[in-house]
Amino acid sequence: MSALPTSQDVIEVSHRLEEHVVRTPVLRNDALDALAGAQLFLKCENLQHTGSFKIRGATNRLLQIAPERRAAGVVAFSSGNHAQGVARAARLLDMPALIVMPADAPAIKVDGVRRDGAEVRLYDRETESREDIAAEEAQKRGATLVPSFDDPYIVAGQGSCGVEFAHQVRELDTGLDHLICCTGGGGLINGIALAFEALSPDTAIWTAEPTGHDDWRQSLQAGDIKVNAPGTRSICDAILTPAPGLVTWALGKRLLKGGCAVEDDRIEETMRLAFRHLKLVLEPGGAAALACALYDLPMEARGKRVGIILSGGNVDPDQFARIISA
Amino acid sequence: MSALPTSQDVIEVSHRLEEHVVRTPVLRNDALDALAGAQLFLKCENLQHTGSFKIRGATNRLLQIAPERRAAGVVAFSSGNHAQGVARAARLLDMPALIVMPADAPAIKVDGVRRDGAEVRLYDRETESREDIAAEEAQKRGATLVPSFDDPYIVAGQGSCGVEFAHQVRELDTGLDHLICCTGGGGLINGIALAFEALSPDTAIWTAEPTGHDDWRQSLQAGDIKVNAPGTRSICDAILTPAPGLVTWALGKRLLKGGCAVEDDRIEETMRLAFRHLKLVLEPGGAAALACALYDLPMEARGKRVGIILSGGNVDPDQFARIISA
Repeated sequence: MSALPTSQDVIEVSHRLEEHVVRTPVLRNDALDALAGAQLFLKCENLQHTGSFKIRGATNRLLQIAPERRAAGVVAFSSGNHAQGVARAARLLDMPALIVMPADAPAIKVDGVRRDGAEVRLYDRETESREDIAAEEAQKRGATLVPSFDDPYIVAGQGSCGVEFAHQVRELDTGLDHLICCTGGGGLINGIALAFEALSPDTAIWTAEPTGHDDWRQSLQAGDIKVNAPGTRSICDAILTPAPGLVTWALGKRLLKGGCAVEDDRIEETMRLAFRHLKLVLEPGGAAALACALYDLPMEARGKRVGIILSGGNVDPDQFARIISA
Repeated sequence: MSALPTSQDVIEVSHRLEEHVVRTPVLRNDALDALAGAQLFLKCENLQHTGSFKIRGATNRLLQIAPERRAAGVVAFSSGNHAQGVARAARLLDMPALIVMPADAPAIKVDGVRRDGAEVRLYDRETESREDIAAEEAQKRGATLVPSFDDPYIVAGQGSCGVEFAHQVRELDTGLDHLICCTGGGGLINGIALAFEALSPDTAIWTAEPTGHDDWRQSLQAGDIKVNAPGTRSICDAILTPAPGLVTWALGKRLLKGGCAVEDDRIEETMRLAFRHLKLVLEPGGAAALACALYDLPMEARGKRVGIILSGGNVDPDQFARIISA
């Protein structure tokens, strides 16, 4: 694979990952269709191993590590979902893993990492650099550092979600006019966009972000990388990155149509709707694409067939309880 | 169809229902397998239209109504899931529906019925007879009364869940040694048992009930219909029936292996585990089979392949919030 993955890479990787990942279901729902004013096709990556899509990229990345380097293991830093993906992939491939996580990460994510046997190193977001800690630990151990999104193997691995989705929609004898996917660093959406470039090239692909963290929307509008104003807060812990990555931007500027964004209170309302109508647990970041379909649907997607990625469900019980009973 | 449905009836009905129901996914989960000490295959009927399996039997029953009787509509009584199944089936088949529901039914279920356009008649559990109200209304309207379980068409319709499940497990290149299904009146489990009689005859089928409402377990042990002691309470509102029905018992005494039962606190713990590990919303009754796999697994099922029906997810947000944050 060269510096930028291709559609062909994504399709090949998806075959390699078949035995490692869940072919997550695609759901339909009348009530949500009526609220969105569109025909929604909901790809449930919250039902993936570890509760998010991240196992896809992590497994593909770990499969690239040369046999003689496997015993030294892997190091990753992440607020949670990538952490869990790497920890599970490492367990399944029998490699040690150290995960650097912020001390305020959701407990459900820290527990998930530990349950898969990985070592956890907590750090203070205010005073420590996770990049420095991870690089230092990787060097000390001779371990491989596993980036969370800005890497061709990670992008290609996440893209397996798109290969599945395109096939599943075809099995339903239909197609997608649009697709909305939550966007942090952009690994998932650009992997999916590569898959759709080959399998469903007429589908328009849109980013979904919380307002104030809509670096992708701003960047796509400007045609150049834009960075979020520092200090903006959102409940969408899984998708808060300051700016598109270099790999993901090189893909995204070519493959993505534009961006949507919603406020946190819309995300919470969407989590309530998913509880009520879908019987699914979504974490805030995992509800972002559905929230955009419900509250910031692009004009041209009205009444159309719209794919939605429900990207994760790792939310602490207390937070979920507070949101659904609001 | 004669008074008792056959395996062949169930398989034929399942084809007729394909266009009306969701082929609900089958999930696996490492963490729950480890807790159960068995290989669990989880059939997610909480992801069915209306949030429970009840649409299957209701649709099949409504499809039997002669064209000249359709305009007069249907009447049903139910604490909630059957109510929603009948309301949705009636909407889809363009028939009016009146549903008699207890005044203390979960609000999410009453709302679901109303959202599908059915008329709701609330009654007082202590002072009124739902059977009398429903019979009187049906007569007044010339409407068809739709029973909730003790009817061959209802049983055959619910059995479509079993036909799907047997095929899905086969698609995974495996089979089921055991299957555990929640049991109220016994419509679902006996429909499934008929499907498995033809498609997977070596699978042992077990009832799942809350302790104190384990009339099926008691009846199967005694070889004759046993009635629960009156006044016993449980949070499993969806599966509280006093005794097996006549149709369902005639099937069950031949097709079912035995019964499991758990206390309500185990049901709540199972709902927490489903939230955490599966990212699924289960209502108390919908969690009963999984709870039995985790806390009352039959000795002979240990280490084996065990099918579990997750039968519904219609739980009020306040109750769910209380349970998951306990």
